[in-house]
Amino acid sequence: MRITALAGGVGGAKLAHGLAQLLPPEDLTVIVNTGDDFEHLGLYICPDLDTVCYTLAGLANPQTGWGRADETWNAMANLARLGGPDWFNLGDSDLATHIERTRRLKEGQTLSQVTRDFCAAWGVRHTVLPMSDQPVRTIVETEEGELPFQEYFVHRRCEPRVKGFRFEGAEVAEPAPGVREAVESADAIVICPSNPWVSIDPILATLTPALSLKGRGNIVAVSPIIGGQTVKGPAAKLFAELGIEPSALAVAKHYRNLLTGFVMDAVDAELLDGVRGLNMRVCVTNTLMRSLDDRMQLAGEVLRFIGETI
Amino acid sequence: MRITALAGGVGGAKLAHGLAQLLPPEDLTVIVNTGDDFEHLGLYICPDLDTVCYTLAGLANPQTGWGRADETWNAMANLARLGGPDWFNLGDSDLATHIERTRRLKEGQTLSQVTRDFCAAWGVRHTVLPMSDQPVRTIVETEEGELPFQEYFVHRRCEPRVKGFRFEGAEVAEPAPGVREAVESADAIVICPSNPWVSIDPILATLTPALSLKGRGNIVAVSPIIGGQTVKGPAAKLFAELGIEPSALAVAKHYRNLLTGFVMDAVDAELLDGVRGLNMRVCVTNTLMRSLDDRMQLAGEVLRFIGETI
Repeated sequence: MRITALAGGVGGAKLAHGLAQLLPPEDLTVIVNTGDDFEHLGLYICPDLDTVCYTLAGLANPQTGWGRADETWNAMANLARLGGPDWFNLGDSDLATHIERTRRLKEGQTLSQVTRDFCAAWGVRHTVLPMSDQPVRTIVETEEGELPFQEYFVHRRCEPRVKGFRFEGAEVAEPAPGVREAVESADAIVICPSNPWVSIDPILATLTPALSLKGRGNIVAVSPIIGGQTVKGPAAKLFAELGIEPSALAVAKHYRNLLTGFVMDAVDAELLDGVRGLNMRVCVTNTLMRSLDDRMQLAGEVLRFIGETI
Repeated sequence: MRITALAGGVGGAKLAHGLAQLLPPEDLTVIVNTGDDFEHLGLYICPDLDTVCYTLAGLANPQTGWGRADETWNAMANLARLGGPDWFNLGDSDLATHIERTRRLKEGQTLSQVTRDFCAAWGVRHTVLPMSDQPVRTIVETEEGELPFQEYFVHRRCEPRVKGFRFEGAEVAEPAPGVREAVESADAIVICPSNPWVSIDPILATLTPALSLKGRGNIVAVSPIIGGQTVKGPAAKLFAELGIEPSALAVAKHYRNLLTGFVMDAVDAELLDGVRGLNMRVCVTNTLMRSLDDRMQLAGEVLRFIGETI
């Protein structure tokens, strides 16, 4: 069974990691959000892409879910000493990724070429693709005006109240090489438990209209909201500020008309009828991924759920 | 007594450090070679400036004389893993210096402003000035053609035979703010035991003609060549390839018509008459700086030697 997964950062990376344990390399492609990418300290930084690659490579920090395991922080400590902008924390090992990627991009390589080479160097055998080689930038519309995503997310710690989002460049950005093939040849698309507004929507906006998923069939999403809360990140807060009660049902509604199946946590079993009412099949299971076993268990459930309908 | 020192990297930094132990901050200015500066990995790197600042700050690696003490190398190790250019070794703490300097220069700050701010952050109280805020680039003319300095020095490990040097941009570069005042107000100029060809000559070329030192008086050089050898770096090899027997006498000849005094090591005492014959006063002492005491002893000798003629 060939699976193409759409993923943002930590939650998406964890499910992708679980899927990678169960599927051979040729049967899994992960298309990653690049709407969070930004230039900082002269470096081209791709937070979601790196989180997915580090996780698949077994290099990720198991505590934070992002960044590198066994990391040191001497560059940042010394940048702070010099009064430099230290609000976006970059570990020493991680810095190499940004430095070398920036160097290669300036040389004229594309982001997908760089990602492929880095995956090879890190021993990632499944395919990881940026959603596009052209820039798409998630802009957060807040009550204090528009903010670039990392400015909102990291520097301002998601404090400004959100009114909406736009994905600058999504209309003109082309899906990266391999994205069309991965979508068209997949037996199913898995939308990972990533933030719907700022991790998955930028991918969907970039694929549309050239590669719209609407009406495609066999699209399954895993809810990033469990018991009304997010495991990590601001998804629940975003729902609330946009006037929607944060819940697995709200996630299902967000993707309505797109999904054929929805995977949600057992703690949300009371929402089962509500989600079924959206005309999608539902799988209720444990979706919290605390260990590698959890990741594999959830990935197995997702694959079984998909298998039931193919 | 106000001293203005001209310095390259390790040897120059050591003597500057010794002078800084003996002179109050307002009485010592160190003008540093920037002909070795280069852009690498998208970073603006100033090897001599950093060596001088780190040394004066007590942050330098005591083993190598360059780079930082207690350094980690995770960024470089990971850059190598990605197949990036790792021939110029940059420690993790050191990287912050280059990242923040590059960021500030791109913002429009000058190299001397950045250097002043960094010195303040590092607790360097004596004045350190780059020779110029404009780029001057030491180009090594070799039998294999012209090579930028770091390409010759680090990447090619000084292997290509040298035919000469030129200092690209020296004709148009202005001395950095403060350099003129430091030269004009100094009671003496000290040429540190740095490579005459590639550390001191770029400074002299940049000062000329606006601020030529010729005929100024009270200019004392400390020989970087001891017993026909260099303590560090390729000066002796350069002399030999340029057809000159490397010796303290050769250094004195190199600076003839400029120096009023010359400091050389006791092991070279047999060259005393030869140097005196160049119409300069000579101080013979221990010039090898293995410890902080050595640095202070040599600095004290240099100041005493200068004091004899003022």
